[in-house]
Amino acid sequence: MQSFTFYNTTKIVFGKGQISELSNLISKDQKIMMIAGGGSINKNGVYDQVMSALEGYKVIEFWGLQPNPEYEKCMEAVQLAKEEKVDFLLSVGGGSVLDATKFIAAALHYEGDDPWAFLDSGEEIKSMMPVGCILTLPATGSESNGNAVISRSERNQKLAFSNPKAMPVFSILDPETTLTLDDRQTANGIVDAFIHVMEQYMTYDVNTPLQDRQAEAILKTLIEQAPKVKANPNDYNTRANIMWCATQALNTLIGSGVVQDWSTHMIGHELTVLHGLDHAQTLAIVLPALLKHQRKQKGGKLVQFGRRVWDIQDTGEDSVIQKAIEKMAGFFEEAGNPTQLSAYDIKVDDCLIAAKRLFEREGKIGERGDIGQAEIEAILRLAE
Amino acid sequence: MQSFTFYNTTKIVFGKGQISELSNLISKDQKIMMIAGGGSINKNGVYDQVMSALEGYKVIEFWGLQPNPEYEKCMEAVQLAKEEKVDFLLSVGGGSVLDATKFIAAALHYEGDDPWAFLDSGEEIKSMMPVGCILTLPATGSESNGNAVISRSERNQKLAFSNPKAMPVFSILDPETTLTLDDRQTANGIVDAFIHVMEQYMTYDVNTPLQDRQAEAILKTLIEQAPKVKANPNDYNTRANIMWCATQALNTLIGSGVVQDWSTHMIGHELTVLHGLDHAQTLAIVLPALLKHQRKQKGGKLVQFGRRVWDIQDTGEDSVIQKAIEKMAGFFEEAGNPTQLSAYDIKVDDCLIAAKRLFEREGKIGERGDIGQAEIEAILRLAE
Repeated sequence: MQSFTFYNTTKIVFGKGQISELSNLISKDQKIMMIAGGGSINKNGVYDQVMSALEGYKVIEFWGLQPNPEYEKCMEAVQLAKEEKVDFLLSVGGGSVLDATKFIAAALHYEGDDPWAFLDSGEEIKSMMPVGCILTLPATGSESNGNAVISRSERNQKLAFSNPKAMPVFSILDPETTLTLDDRQTANGIVDAFIHVMEQYMTYDVNTPLQDRQAEAILKTLIEQAPKVKANPNDYNTRANIMWCATQALNTLIGSGVVQDWSTHMIGHELTVLHGLDHAQTLAIVLPALLKHQRKQKGGKLVQFGRRVWDIQDTGEDSVIQKAIEKMAGFFEEAGNPTQLSAYDIKVDDCLIAAKRLFEREGKIGERGDIGQAEIEAILRLAE
Repeated sequence: MQSFTFYNTTKIVFGKGQISELSNLISKDQKIMMIAGGGSINKNGVYDQVMSALEGYKVIEFWGLQPNPEYEKCMEAVQLAKEEKVDFLLSVGGGSVLDATKFIAAALHYEGDDPWAFLDSGEEIKSMMPVGCILTLPATGSESNGNAVISRSERNQKLAFSNPKAMPVFSILDPETTLTLDDRQTANGIVDAFIHVMEQYMTYDVNTPLQDRQAEAILKTLIEQAPKVKANPNDYNTRANIMWCATQALNTLIGSGVVQDWSTHMIGHELTVLHGLDHAQTLAIVLPALLKHQRKQKGGKLVQFGRRVWDIQDTGEDSVIQKAIEKMAGFFEEAGNPTQLSAYDIKVDDCLIAAKRLFEREGKIGERGDIGQAEIEAILRLAE
């Protein structure tokens, strides 16, 4: 096992009706800026629940954060928060709204010229305005980690920061708020959570049997819950189980002491920038292709994945690996996310610039640092 | 799934040589009271590492905490800490030293007459002196929870409190410090961690598949690592895996959203008070008997436990249950902890007072509140 620090300070308040706990989580003297997306929280009643819980507080609202939240939009929120002298940021929505809120919170305490430095030059976040979260879409795990991904389309950039200081002080997870998610959002969430686990699990072994099994626990549960939510999207317990899986997938626990490999995410981000695909749509395309390409390097864990997660009994390891990748791809397809670029009418030649951009920015990627421009191109061709 | 709050604020610093991180974890202006046990930390070099890391700090020392730490001894430490005006308590040792340190920390901020009220009348801990931990014996999980168990022999009491405010601010877990543990300490740690998981897992189902699998992940890893540590007590990775299992077993994660049943611990505590057995020795005696007695009530989970944790393929559920309990008892025996009172020359008639005392204090126990005095007596007879 590798040495590690595990420190997760987010208070999770989980269950039906828990939005009413807000007044126990934010002190009355705080001026709050509620940050939200495009209005779905109006339709599903979450906005009303929040406002009812915040009666007696000073609250201003900032709306309009979109999936793949944009730098420019975030900076508008920074401006408003400064003018209004707010003390606390409350994100109400999915991971994109929350990622934006974290960036806004960090920007509000930043003394340099342009807080984009947190993303493109790795400047460290030393302090940020406190952030609370009401999560309405389980997927990114942002509700219990210090990560955020922000886009700056004018520069063709979609970049991430990760800092323990950027964890929400609390996150309210009420599975009832997810009952109204549509099929696409639900599928994206399941695939995103699944692949978060894979990026921390599908690497070379450093003797971490507990972390492996904790990762497999999430994978198996997602595999089991996905058809249930399709059959019965209104089942509270199924939604609750998916929501808890998504949080556990990226709260840094299963990544403690192990080798990680975020190649699929890095390639996926480039595809979103290029073609506007949803985040999880890109991941479902990249991962099967990446595993086919890296089947030798990741062979040991692929066999374990096949046997333990997919119960493949074959004796031959090659056969286990092949079936495991096929079953995983089938799972993504079944959940609702195709695994080939062609499903979105995207030609691979229109993606190769992603390999160049990524390589020029990051150098070789992968847990062994052996995935360069040529390898990324080969992976994209396998996903044609 | 039940509603829950998950909030674990302990920073875990895990790995070889991490004691040297102490100076980054405690600010220089704090006057520290180091609290320790009987001297094993002198023999294994931990004391020297701590003192070297704390060069330049004001440090006083308080020694002599024993397993099943005593109220009277703790109150001596409270007295000294007050006289010396310390700001920070550093526990160096196993779970008993740490439990004592938590109680001392709470007592130091207590304004009532006798802080025993935290234990025998459930008075709430509102604030306590900060506690840091250097763990040298993986077992209790105290390094990442707000629990403590304190004994008051003059009153025949061994009682617990549990409060999120009582979590250590940090815990340093260096598996190297556990290489010198003897067979008895190692066995006790493995059995204690295993049974912590069981108390949160072996209950009726409320649709928590992820928590179930996370629990099974710990159980399976302990089952796999136990013979390894017996064969090779000096293997760092085996010790590291056991240490991480023990933390994960009782950091409140697998208990989130599930039904819990701490009957085995409650009965075990009484046996320690009566006969001075080690904590984990009592648990290994009580749990197999309790599961035999409760096999009907816990049938569904027992079958799952048998199939998933012990890979029992039998089709008949009764047979799976019987074999699962036998295999678990065999695992405790193999680890080094007998499962019958007779192994310690204890007659069951000399234990029955435990049933009376426990029932008089707690009423009926168990996840369904159906284990009263007669049932505890029956369980003890099954453990004869």
